Order: sequence, then structure tokens, then C-alpha cells
Amino acid sequence: MVKNRFFFNFADENIINEYAKRVNDEYKSGEIGYYHLPNLAKAMSAEILEYEKSLDEIKSVVLVGIGGSSLGVKALKQMLSDKPHKRELFFLDNVDESSFKSVINSVNFSQTLFIISSKSGTTIETISIFKCLLSLYKPKDLSKNFLIITDPATPLEAYAKENGVKFFNIPKNVGGRFSVLSAIGLVPLALCGYDILALLEGASSAKKHYIDENKKEIIAKAYHYATHRSADINVIFSYCDRLASFNEWYVQLWAESLGKKRGYKRIGRTPIGLIGSRDQHSFLQLIMDGVKDKTITFIKITGQNEIKIPNLSIKGLQSCDFVNSLGLNELLNHQCDATAMALVQEGLSVDVIEISQLDEFSAGYLIYYYELLTSAVGIMLGINTYDQPGVEIGKRILKTMLLK
Amino acid sequence: MVKNRFFFNFADENIINEYAKRVNDEYKSGEIGYYHLPNLAKAMSAEILEYEKSLDEIKSVVLVGIGGSSLGVKALKQMLSDKPHKRELFFLDNVDESSFKSVINSVNFSQTLFIISSKSGTTIETISIFKCLLSLYKPKDLSKNFLIITDPATPLEAYAKENGVKFFNIPKNVGGRFSVLSAIGLVPLALCGYDILALLEGASSAKKHYIDENKKEIIAKAYHYATHRSADINVIFSYCDRLASFNEWYVQLWAESLGKKRGYKRIGRTPIGLIGSRDQHSFLQLIMDGVKDKTITFIKITGQNEIKIPNLSIKGLQSCDFVNSLGLNELLNHQCDATAMALVQEGLSVDVIEISQLDEFSAGYLIYYYELLTSAVGIMLGINTYDQPGVEIGKRILKTMLLK
Repeated sequence: MVKNRFFFNFADENIINEYAKRVNDEYKSGEIGYYHLPNLAKAMSAEILEYEKSLDEIKSVVLVGIGGSSLGVKALKQMLSDKPHKRELFFLDNVDESSFKSVINSVNFSQTLFIISSKSGTTIETISIFKCLLSLYKPKDLSKNFLIITDPATPLEAYAKENGVKFFNIPKNVGGRFSVLSAIGLVPLALCGYDILALLEGASSAKKHYIDENKKEIIAKAYHYATHRSADINVIFSYCDRLASFNEWYVQLWAESLGKKRGYKRIGRTPIGLIGSRDQHSFLQLIMDGVKDKTITFIKITGQNEIKIPNLSIKGLQSCDFVNSLGLNELLNHQCDATAMALVQEGLSVDVIEISQLDEFSAGYLIYYYELLTSAVGIMLGINTYDQPGVEIGKRILKTMLLK
Repeated sequence: MVKNRFFFNFADENIINEYAKRVNDEYKSGEIGYYHLPNLAKAMSAEILEYEKSLDEIKSVVLVGIGGSSLGVKALKQMLSDKPHKRELFFLDNVDESSFKSVINSVNFSQTLFIISSKSGTTIETISIFKCLLSLYKPKDLSKNFLIITDPATPLEAYAKENGVKFFNIPKNVGGRFSVLSAIGLVPLALCGYDILALLEGASSAKKHYIDENKKEIIAKAYHYATHRSADINVIFSYCDRLASFNEWYVQLWAESLGKKRGYKRIGRTPIGLIGSRDQHSFLQLIMDGVKDKTITFIKITGQNEIKIPNLSIKGLQSCDFVNSLGLNELLNHQCDATAMALVQEGLSVDVIEISQLDEFSAGYLIYYYELLTSAVGIMLGINTYDQPGVEIGKRILKTMLLK
């Protein structure tokens, strides 16, 4: 149901095996939490689903969180937007006044659950929006309309305990951008009626293929990216509108994990997310004729084919009749194949991920696949994939600017 | 109302003057149409506004168009989303079945105007969606619910004439990605009640500054981008959610204009659009610590400050109190300044565009500013900024695949 075809050569098997072992060692060390979420999070799912039963009066859920606390959830919400859902999910993921007003005007406080989601518990944007909500609604009983997701033992957890607010924890060793399969993603998605067990099952299935059964594709692809230094821009070209937010999740995962200093040396791989066929009319020209500094992964969804282009010939426009009777999505997928072929002919590194149906299972698979790929590239580049030292400086400058 | 500050050095004045002259020559040649739209399009505006008066029964407008026919319109719709508007504007800009169904389910045919927008008149995606609409609604009288925007003398124009469908033309010498200030953008925006005269006035104002009065900032900035070859990724970091689609418009403009073959040599500048402060928690790490291959333009909106962070101290979270009493957007702008300063300290090329208010005037100014900048970089790189030969190959392969 998720297939991956490659149009570039893999490195020598010994090298791939060597790195597969190193990824496996990192997995087995237990230090990096996200690897283990597909199993670990199953226990928490029961608690979440039990809690959901208490929310009879709640019609909308607003997730207050930024970066790793919202990008993955947004991605999954959009990937699953064709599915029926129980409650509407909104996001407050920026300190932008217009967005704040727009979300507030879309919900009714007494029927809304606000999830305050912050791994550190002290994210300045999230806490500031939380304060705005407290000041706007002046709730007497916080427990009815608020829920907190945070690491164990943060100030935000202490606040939850003191105010009788329900909270869920993220394991300390699961990084923000790797956390969507923890409470960060599972809680809001389950409360809105998406099937989080199928999501975890999809991730489990990817884990089974690439860790337990030792399938080497991800390692080989990672090695290509880590060593193909003239092409240090890695494009995902998704032929499906519902993958736009997945692209943004990938951009965070890739950029923040793989842009690092190693001693005095600066290392980086630049992620770009495109949507087909739309961006054939935008970015494609640069990939085709510009500097060959990009790899391209196409993602297409094959199992949707309801709306057909009618067998209609418009006078003067007969040159467009060659796609008549195709499904809209069939046309989209043929465009994907044609573009991939054109790029292969130009000698670019191309691979194609084919998904039969965009549902919780395949979404979980794809998420785990990209997390593993990121870890593997990080190991090959010899960097710490899981920290983000570079973003602290801006925070310090902000504090200095405002405290003086 | 639109200010630009630079944190890198400009080249020698003689060089800048030389290139300013070449841009001016291109402008004066009259061959490149977009330069002249701020004046030219005023006459058409009267016709559009007159036509709008005939649309009493129309409640929604659906723009069917892809690439240059929709990206700029989407950008302006979002930039102006705080403004009151007369009709809702929807987009069918991809052959994606789910998106098609979602738009169709949001409108009532008899109260909807579908704009079929295609410069060439034969865009395969646009014509295919047009056919789906014809087959779905089987309209007896096309003139009531359809409108066409296309180049003069295309098959689509002929179709409009034969079926009594109102149409507007784009000047032949205005390229798709440079066309948002022509009928392509003006028609849908005017029909939805946005002030297209103020939009053109904003563009006129930019033209006055940079062409008529010969202000050199854009040329100097372009020269920096064209010659600073180690930094060939050009990032726009917009601190405002309403600029997300503007970022995408910029990505098309930049990528498709500046990614070209010059003889056997491949030339390119890679555009990236980010949203602050959100992407401080995503892409910023890569800019700070990764390879120094990026320039960064910050865009911030200064004149909005309604919602304040309350002067509230939460027990355990006092470390977040230093932003208390700031407006949400003040915090956003301080974050913008702090991040810009952090990047300047790392030795990256930074400039800041400050807009006092996001309205039709400033939107028009910003659009024209970026079009001029693109033209200037294209001249300096010695390429044809206005064609897109690379995207034809994929179209040919598609046809070959489907005709066999």
C-alpha cells in the first residue's frame, strides 16, 4: 500500500549494511524516544479515548501550539480531510492578531476545548496566546475548556495539577519535531474522531519493514542524500492537495534536524515541498533547467478515481481531448509520471512513493518513514539530529531587546 | 508606508547605474508588458467595474486557473483577508478530485460565476476542469455563470465569442507569472469587492519610485543576489500569516523566471518562503547553523496592534512575563527584529521590508517591487526572464504516454 521506486543507483551493499547497523544501534539504545512510539503510545491511546468520552458538550477543539506541537497535527488533519470527523479542529500556531481573531470568531467558548501544547512548557508564543485566552474568557473552572500537553515536570504540568486541568505527557526523549505520534498528535486527532490506532499501526508497519525486517531502501536513499553533495536541496513533490501540510511538516523535520554545525563546519540539507500538478507551472522550470542541486521525491495517491473528465470535445480545443475519459486523479498521476520521467532524463535523482489510499494507516507509515530517513541521514552526516542550538540566539536577543 | 532596510553593502555606484539603465531600457522598449500594467490596466478597470454591476444574483466566484492564473490572485485574496468583501472567492487550481468536490460542495451553481482563466487558452488542467463543470451542471445559457480570461485570439476566446460568454483579455506580452495586475487578477478581485484601483495605485507608486525617480535599492539588491553566488537560495521570511500565499506567488515568480539554461550552462536562484514566528521553530535552525547558502528578506507589518498580551503572571511561568502588555503583533515584530539581528551577526545577507498596513495599495506596491527585482536579477544573469522552456518536455511526455 506504500511502495517506493528509485531512479538512482544504490551504494555498495556493505556500506548500506554498515549504516543499517548504526541506525539499529541508535534504535536499540533506547535514547531516542520516537523510534518506540508506535508501541509505547498504544497504552496512552486507551487513556485518550477514555477521556474523549467525557467531552459530550465539546463541539470544537483549538490546538494552541507552535512548531513541533502543531505542524504534524496540521499535516495529519489535512491528509485525513476526506474522512468524516467528530469535531472541528482549529489551530492557534502563531502570535498573529488576525489569525487569533479569525479562530476566536469561529468557535463558541463553552463548547470548545483549548489544548495548550508545549513540550518545554515555556514556549513564549504558546504561553502568550494562553494568557490572551484566559483574559478574554475569564473561565471560572479551567478543567472544562482546557487541556494541557507537555513534558513531565514542566511548569505547565505543575499549573495543570494545581488547577485541576487534565494533562497528557510527552516522553522527555521524544523531540518536538519527532513527536506527532505521541500525545502531541494523538490527543487532538482522537478528540476529533480520527482513528489513532490505525495511525500507530501504520507507523508500526513501517517500523517492522525498516527496523525489524531490515529492509534497506531507507538507508540506501539516506546514503544517496548524505553523499550526493552537489544536490543538497531535497524536494518532495506531492501530487495531492491534501499533502501540502505534510510537506511543511517535512520541511521542519528535515531543516531543523539536518542543519547543524559540526565543529567549525556548517552542514545542511535544504528541504522544499511542492504540490503537483500545480507547481509544474511554478517551481518545475528551475528543477529542469536550473543548477542540478536538487533531488526529487514524488508522492502520488493511486486509489482515488471517482470524477472523470467527460468525453467532450470543445470546438477549437480538440488538442485537449487526449485526456478525455480519464479520472481527474488519473490525469494527476500521469502528470506525476511524465514529470518524473522528464527529470530522470535530465539525470536528476528521482524516486516515487506510491500510496494506494490516504488514510490513517498510510499517513502513519509515511510519517515514520520520513522520521527514519532523517535519522539515517543525520547519522551519516555525523551530526546531532535531535537538538536545535541555533534557534536559541534569537530568543536571547528578543529577551535582551525587551528587558532593557 | 513600504520601507526597505539593508544589512549588506551595495556595490559600486557606477555598476548599479549601469544596470539601472539596462532595466530602464527594457522598460522603455515596451516589449515586456507587465512594466506598463499600472497605467494600462486602469482603462480596463472601468470595464470590469461596469460588468460587476450586472452580477446581482451572483454570490460566489470560482476561479478556474493554474500557475500564473491563480497564484497571484490567491496571494492578494489572502493579503486582503482582513478587509470586508462582497463575494466569496474559491479556487480550482489543481486536477485534484478531493479539492474539486470540496469547492463544488461549497457553492450553489445558479449563484456562482465560474471564471475560466488561461493565458494560452489551452491549459490542460483548466480545460479539463471546465469540461467537468460543463458535464456536471449542463448549463443552457453559458453567459450567466461563466466568464473567460485569456490572451487575444486564443481558441478559448473564440469559444467565448461563439457562446456569448463575456471575456477579458490579457496583453500578449504580459507573462503568466507577471500577470496578476492584468485582467487575471483584477477581474476576480474586483468582482469580490476589493479595491483594484488602490491596488494599481500601489503598483504605480512602486513604478514611480524605482523607474521614474530612479531609486536604486532594487537594482542594488538584485546585483547582490546575482553576484553573491555562494548564497543562491533566496528566502522571504514573512512575519504575518496573511503573507503565506504571497510567498508562494514569489516562489513561482523567482523559480520560473530565474531557473534557466544559458547555452550549456545551468543558471538558477532557488526561492523559499517562510512564515514567522512559526518557522523560527522549523527552518531557522538550518539558516543559522547550516551552510551559508541563503539570503534572507524579512517582511513585517507594523501598523496592527489591537490585541494585547495581558499583564498576567502565571505561577511557575514568570519567565514568560517579559512580553506582558505587548500587542500580539508587537511581539511578532520584535521576534522578527531579533531573528534578523541574529542572522546579521552570523554574517548572512539580510534586508527588512516594513509595511505599515496590509491593504490594496501596499499589496500592489509589493507585487510590483518583486516583479522589478526579478527582472533586474534576470538581466544581470544574462538569461531570458520571461520564458519557461523546461516545462514543455513533461507536457510532451504526458501526451506521448496517453496517445500510445
